[in-house]
Amino acid sequence: MSYRFALGLEYDGSGFCGWQRQDHAPSVQAALEAALSRVADEPVTVTCAGRTDTGVHATGQVVHFETGAYRPEHAWVLGANANLPDTVSVHWVQPVSEAFHARFGALRRSYRYVWYCSRSRPALLRGRVAWSKYALDPEPMAMAAGHLLGRHDFSAFRAVACQAKHPVRELYRLDVWARGGFVYLDVCANAFLHHMVRNLAGTLALIGRGERPATWAADLLAGGDRTRAGATAPAEGLYLVGVDYPEAFSLPPHGWWPRFA
Amino acid sequence: MSYRFALGLEYDGSGFCGWQRQDHAPSVQAALEAALSRVADEPVTVTCAGRTDTGVHATGQVVHFETGAYRPEHAWVLGANANLPDTVSVHWVQPVSEAFHARFGALRRSYRYVWYCSRSRPALLRGRVAWSKYALDPEPMAMAAGHLLGRHDFSAFRAVACQAKHPVRELYRLDVWARGGFVYLDVCANAFLHHMVRNLAGTLALIGRGERPATWAADLLAGGDRTRAGATAPAEGLYLVGVDYPEAFSLPPHGWWPRFA
Repeated sequence: MSYRFALGLEYDGSGFCGWQRQDHAPSVQAALEAALSRVADEPVTVTCAGRTDTGVHATGQVVHFETGAYRPEHAWVLGANANLPDTVSVHWVQPVSEAFHARFGALRRSYRYVWYCSRSRPALLRGRVAWSKYALDPEPMAMAAGHLLGRHDFSAFRAVACQAKHPVRELYRLDVWARGGFVYLDVCANAFLHHMVRNLAGTLALIGRGERPATWAADLLAGGDRTRAGATAPAEGLYLVGVDYPEAFSLPPHGWWPRFA
Repeated sequence: MSYRFALGLEYDGSGFCGWQRQDHAPSVQAALEAALSRVADEPVTVTCAGRTDTGVHATGQVVHFETGAYRPEHAWVLGANANLPDTVSVHWVQPVSEAFHARFGALRRSYRYVWYCSRSRPALLRGRVAWSKYALDPEPMAMAAGHLLGRHDFSAFRAVACQAKHPVRELYRLDVWARGGFVYLDVCANAFLHHMVRNLAGTLALIGRGERPATWAADLLAGGDRTRAGATAPAEGLYLVGVDYPEAFSLPPHGWWPRFA
């Protein structure tokens, strides 16, 4: 008899080589598998919705795992957290049917990118936000973002190392807004190419600084040439904030945390 | 010829033994004096408005120092930050008259205390908020806080080690509010006794958990007995958010950051 569980996870990406298990560096996956294996008292492997890169954070990562060990939901949460480093926290665990797959069953992924704009650096949020010494004007950034919505070939915003089979993705949401000294980019798509959010963020930041016109993003998209777009924005500003699945699975709704002002 | 400067400072208190210089532990004061001394190319000593305890954060600490070295304001900011650890950031430096004194000239100090209420711990904000496994109801907390406003003998909320000459302080503001999973306590007073904000927070948290009635805080205040109040709340939830001076000094206005949701 085996059971399948879905699990909601928050982590500070700065101490990890990213989600994916690697031989000589600490990964979120390895930390979570070690913790769940102790609770299950047998080896557990996990599959996640979004394999975040080195330094990228998550407030709404979703994972599934299968195990022969039956534990009540709160025992999974408390047991996993007791065995995880304090940079990772399991917020919920829920039984799901065999039809649930964290990666292939995800309908939409949502990311938030956060800039802190100030001439002096952030101390308390170091490593949690991208520091921009320059003011970013959210208006042209939002205009530029509007041109990227919908289903497109996103080759211009795709990392060279990207292993996806094709470069077409559908952007459902790409909102830019500002509050306090912070500028936020909220992105939701069916899926993302490698570095796609950070490449979009790097491009929009140049527009926000006034170095490029708002129309530049649409030109880049049409051109399809990665070498012309903005530099990849730093990992520390990026958060996987949530993943959507068919309602039938009844997973907890996801928020858009963090919001720092 | 000597010049006096005021300086606005943010720091993550978790790596420090507190503000005050100590022989065998890293203090914010020692870090700042070392950095400013390098910029001034002569020894600089600093005086702060609020001597925060071990682990307590600041987003609006105010400091003054005197030096024979003339530097433009941005040179102080950039130079100090280049020589400070990344857990400390100087946000502004401004010349002030000899009449300015960061500690004795302060009219009001403002602190914010932040709880994160969740059955699972915070990962990204670990060390930045006090984690409450229990829900806190802000309504009775706010009612209780209302009874403490004004000028009182705060002996019931004073640490045993407190060295203040008398226990009377005037509370101008004591607001409790909640947003997202966070509960905030905003306090403003002419000055504070040792551990006073954390003792108020610990007492209000017991009221928020429903373990004591809202009237308990007023009873404690009237009784004046520290041993009857709630435990001192953890340092990691506390922020010195700002200090007010007479308007004639024209210092930058302070905000109430952090707000996490």
